[in-house]
Amino acid sequence: MTRTRCVAAGFCLLALSAGVARAQEADDPETRLRALGLTLPPASTPIANYVKAVRTGNLVFLAGHGECGTPLAGKVGREVGIDSAYASARRVGLCLLSSLKAEIGDLRKVRRVVKVLGMVNSAPDFTEQPRVINGFSDLMVSVFGERGRHARSAVGMAALPRDMSVEIEMVVEVVNP
Amino acid sequence: MTRTRCVAAGFCLLALSAGVARAQEADDPETRLRALGLTLPPASTPIANYVKAVRTGNLVFLAGHGECGTPLAGKVGREVGIDSAYASARRVGLCLLSSLKAEIGDLRKVRRVVKVLGMVNSAPDFTEQPRVINGFSDLMVSVFGERGRHARSAVGMAALPRDMSVEIEMVVEVVNP
Amino acid sequence: MTRTRCVAAGFCLLALSAGVARAQEADDPETRLRALGLTLPPASTPIANYVKAVRTGNLVFLAGHGECGTPLAGKVGREVGIDSAYASARRVGLCLLSSLKAEIGDLRKVRRVVKVLGMVNSAPDFTEQPRVINGFSDLMVSVFGERGRHARSAVGMAALPRDMSVEIEMVVEVVNP
Repeated sequence: MTRTRCVAAGFCLLALSAGVARAQEADDPETRLRALGLTLPPASTPIANYVKAVRTGNLVFLAGHGECGTPLAGKVGREVGIDSAYASARRVGLCLLSSLKAEIGDLRKVRRVVKVLGMVNSAPDFTEQPRVINGFSDLMVSVFGERGRHARSAVGMAALPRDMSVEIEMVVEVVNP
Repeated sequence: MTRTRCVAAGFCLLALSAGVARAQEADDPETRLRALGLTLPPASTPIANYVKAVRTGNLVFLAGHGECGTPLAGKVGREVGIDSAYASARRVGLCLLSSLKAEIGDLRKVRRVVKVLGMVNSAPDFTEQPRVINGFSDLMVSVFGERGRHARSAVGMAALPRDMSVEIEMVVEVVNP
Repeated sequence: MTRTRCVAAGFCLLALSAGVARAQEADDPETRLRALGLTLPPASTPIANYVKAVRTGNLVFLAGHGECGTPLAGKVGREVGIDSAYASARRVGLCLLSSLKAEIGDLRKVRRVVKVLGMVNSAPDFTEQPRVINGFSDLMVSVFGERGRHARSAVGMAALPRDMSVEIEMVVEVVNP
């Protein structure tokens, strides 16, 4: 289509760059978030001697995050059901993206979500941790496409801070500064 | 020995390269696996939005793996004993090697097993997680020699997916592509 | 101040290098440890097929460490209180620094403490894991300043080896060799 409209070199370049701009906009993770009706929560800052994210080379290591704001609390498989926990894992994902954006400035710099540890506050006989952490993983693929597909563990913890139901940490590869 | 047989430059090179080939064969992790009577299970593919391994630079981050096929299930220290769990950890290692080979093509590219998180589905009073994860660590050293020796944590989880007894994730350094 | 004393190029250089030496001494993590009245325990060696630390590129991955020597034991929130567990986390930090020094030779090579997984042997209803792991994080910032501030997870495990109350692993960025 673009090529047939290239009657003059100048117009051709114009059309191409407009096409690139449109493609970039569609690829912008924040555009995708808006299309999903989602917004990033404000970035929070820890009160203790640690930080939300550290960059080393092309990798960003993110701290374990719960939901920004008041998290869903309680053990999954006892007082918390899978669907609520799935929704919580999705909100944890938004909170992680907020910290990531604060660290790198622009989510378009994400080259790959590399590794995820999904921790579910679990009753001892609860065995569906993957269905909970899917709430996070589905969000990452919605927002980043194939670049959002990560190596992951989804496991059951004895207890989590503030009794929150889901805590997730991740490693992300970003483009050079 | 080789040097004394080097009566002519051509033969010398021949003998040297044959020696190198033998050394490489002995060093081939898959040759070592066969010598142990072990075979890699077929690589599996996750059904959810995640993958078994992601490479970033010279590092490969592997997802948490249980056994390929039907895993040993139940809490160690309650219905599962240490010896069965040790054998399970060894089979988890084979499953990880299968995913690693699928990612990098050839296990001879492994430069070092760097970091391992060994997760044992534990009764609250079970404290022998290291003896379980030794099943994995012993396999890595059998297969890779000194390059298989890794930094490791062996810890007790409240619950694991499908109630499996052992889940392990790892980070591996590989040679340049 | 230094500049006003630079009446001759030679003295200026002398004064500058003396200043640098003083700054380096104050920046030396081991000087800071001594100022805190702390000493590193002797580095230990694991008896099984794993190691305390592996370096890959500029990153050092450290194994999960308990305290060097006899660790505080028992579940936090049941038979162990927060203050004792905080002190234990601090001693675990010393043990990690000992292994790190054995790996890299000099703690002044630490560019950043990157990522920490703080594991607390937790009663199922204990939710103050961050207050425990602060014992470790506070030490890192005391010893390394801003470079000691890390991304962290502080979570509750069902059980730990030898029933120890606290186990911690970390990733550290170091300067080029």
